Amino acid sequence: MDIETLTDEFDRRDWQDVEATDDPIRIAMIGVGWWTREQAIPAVASADLCETAVLVSSDPEKAGEAAADSETVEHAISYEAFHDGAASDAYDAVYVVTPNARHLEFVETAAEMGKAILCEKPMEATIERAERMVEVVEAHDATLMVAYRMQTEPAVRRAKEFVDEGLIGKPVFVNGNMTEPILDLVPDPDQWRLDGELSGGCATMDIGIYPLNTARFLLDADPVRVRGTVASVQPEFDDVPDEHSAFQLDFPDHVFAVCTASQNAQMASHIEVIGTEGRVRVEPAFYPWDDRALTLQRGETSVDVAFEQVDQMEEEFEYFAHCLLTGEDPHPDGEHALRDIEAIKAVYEASEREETVEL
Amino acid sequence: MDIETLTDEFDRRDWQDVEATDDPIRIAMIGVGWWTREQAIPAVASADLCETAVLVSSDPEKAGEAAADSETVEHAISYEAFHDGAASDAYDAVYVVTPNARHLEFVETAAEMGKAILCEKPMEATIERAERMVEVVEAHDATLMVAYRMQTEPAVRRAKEFVDEGLIGKPVFVNGNMTEPILDLVPDPDQWRLDGELSGGCATMDIGIYPLNTARFLLDADPVRVRGTVASVQPEFDDVPDEHSAFQLDFPDHVFAVCTASQNAQMASHIEVIGTEGRVRVEPAFYPWDDRALTLQRGETSVDVAFEQVDQMEEEFEYFAHCLLTGEDPHPDGEHALRDIEAIKAVYEASEREETVEL
Repeated sequence: MDIETLTDEFDRRDWQDVEATDDPIRIAMIGVGWWTREQAIPAVASADLCETAVLVSSDPEKAGEAAADSETVEHAISYEAFHDGAASDAYDAVYVVTPNARHLEFVETAAEMGKAILCEKPMEATIERAERMVEVVEAHDATLMVAYRMQTEPAVRRAKEFVDEGLIGKPVFVNGNMTEPILDLVPDPDQWRLDGELSGGCATMDIGIYPLNTARFLLDADPVRVRGTVASVQPEFDDVPDEHSAFQLDFPDHVFAVCTASQNAQMASHIEVIGTEGRVRVEPAFYPWDDRALTLQRGETSVDVAFEQVDQMEEEFEYFAHCLLTGEDPHPDGEHALRDIEAIKAVYEASEREETVEL
Repeated sequence: MDIETLTDEFDRRDWQDVEATDDPIRIAMIGVGWWTREQAIPAVASADLCETAVLVSSDPEKAGEAAADSETVEHAISYEAFHDGAASDAYDAVYVVTPNARHLEFVETAAEMGKAILCEKPMEATIERAERMVEVVEAHDATLMVAYRMQTEPAVRRAKEFVDEGLIGKPVFVNGNMTEPILDLVPDPDQWRLDGELSGGCATMDIGIYPLNTARFLLDADPVRVRGTVASVQPEFDDVPDEHSAFQLDFPDHVFAVCTASQNAQMASHIEVIGTEGRVRVEPAFYPWDDRALTLQRGETSVDVAFEQVDQMEEEFEYFAHCLLTGEDPHPDGEHALRDIEAIKAVYEASEREETVEL
């Protein structure tokens, strides 16, 4: 591939064989917060291969209201009812989007019932619980995908294609950032993201995971060493270590990533790979409401690469449903996601100990 | 100042009172490598307040050739002759642009002779020699400016104005990078930049110093803590620790900078400050041959800020000469520059010890 003659040959859904079905994957969404209502439910409504069949909430009234707005939802049930098997004939798979520290219990119940699972990132609040999730899924031979929507985002997939084809030479650095003013986005000081027990961490766990996981995806490698520093400054962040987080990841072959994440800063997101012969940058990158942009530079030639803007959540759900319909194992799985939890906890440890931490 | 009504009121030379002189500062350039010939001599030829009067080189033939191309150079002398005081009536100030580990000897001689000094960055190859330079300059009450051309670059000065005026809120992160394929730029495996004794370090010393020092300038603060990792992979870099370098700087008040620098990567440079209410980015930033671009974002409004493209070296020489003509102390001085050497050496130490290093 030559940068001067980049064409539109890119296939953002190179995984797709089936484009329609009379028997869509019926999803039970567990957790009905703003993300579910504003992002997930509309995305699934637009998708061809799945539909939202059940809503599961700690607040049945909230679930009932959301259900009433939907043409496909037939059951709105409580967390307890879910665990008791209510409406279990009405769904094939679950989408777990509760606070981080409650993911495991729903994955466990779903796995026991033989349901496929799409679990939001970060997969759990601690390494121990994330490991337990991997074990539970394995024990029940269940299907678990962790919801890293960047891995089905066309801009990121195309960037990976450029890296894989050697267009930037050998990767040298990754530079990534994700920052947002969480208390403007979710104006509630009691939200679970600021509760250390429920979240397991703040800026690094919730959004630092985007540059972290996307770096792993773009490089097709896992970090071997971590260093960094975190700080909570404003009183709203007293219960978590990281209102702000800056960290470095050493990948094999001396490829270094520098990342920043903050829950109290200007909304911005980017990821860039600089190589020996070029660089590729996605900015904006991580927010579904910002149109993504992709730039490729090789030597002195720079190209703004055109690609389709998609609904990131629809793309992700469609991929997940497609895997279930065709019998493929969806990626990323629990083992892959566990690496992120280990790296994030290593950032906290590195900051605490003022040392580099081996993974 | 309101981002919606940004005007052209910016004065890139707010330091300037004198615009012309019959008595320009006569400069002796010490070291006549490619940077001197291709950047410094043409810049001074365009400047109004100074002129190149003397060239000092280890290779008198090379100096003679460069002198023959100049209308103002009257003497081309050897390093030894300079130390012996040759042609000392023909110049008022020196520009030291030898290999890093030879800066001190020329600064010493110039200070003894009462000449003003503009010394290239990094100021010296070791902390001890940089400290010695500060002492020597102080002992002779000499004038020393260290040549950080970013501090007179209009894009960076304007970015600092935005930060100072609170347009991005409180700074949270700085993100900077400078990368180049040094063996393409200077195709000589025996160059001094790759000689640890002469350079004192490679990617961090030579170009990592740009994001480091520009972060300090933009924040008006010095780092208190450093962590990072460096690596030399290709055999040409065997004698230096850092073909590649990734480092973090903790500034006071929990402001974190992440920086990368490589002497064997795609040429690229940027610096960005992300704040609680906005962000400002200069990209390209550090290479004199790339037109700089400045973007300011505040909330959802983003502005590409217009400013004059200048010859960065001319701007720097003009400022230095202006200070000498008006009796002002030029900035940045030796004490300021010493902080960078300490931070850079701390990066090497942090990488070696796998620990955070306090400054």
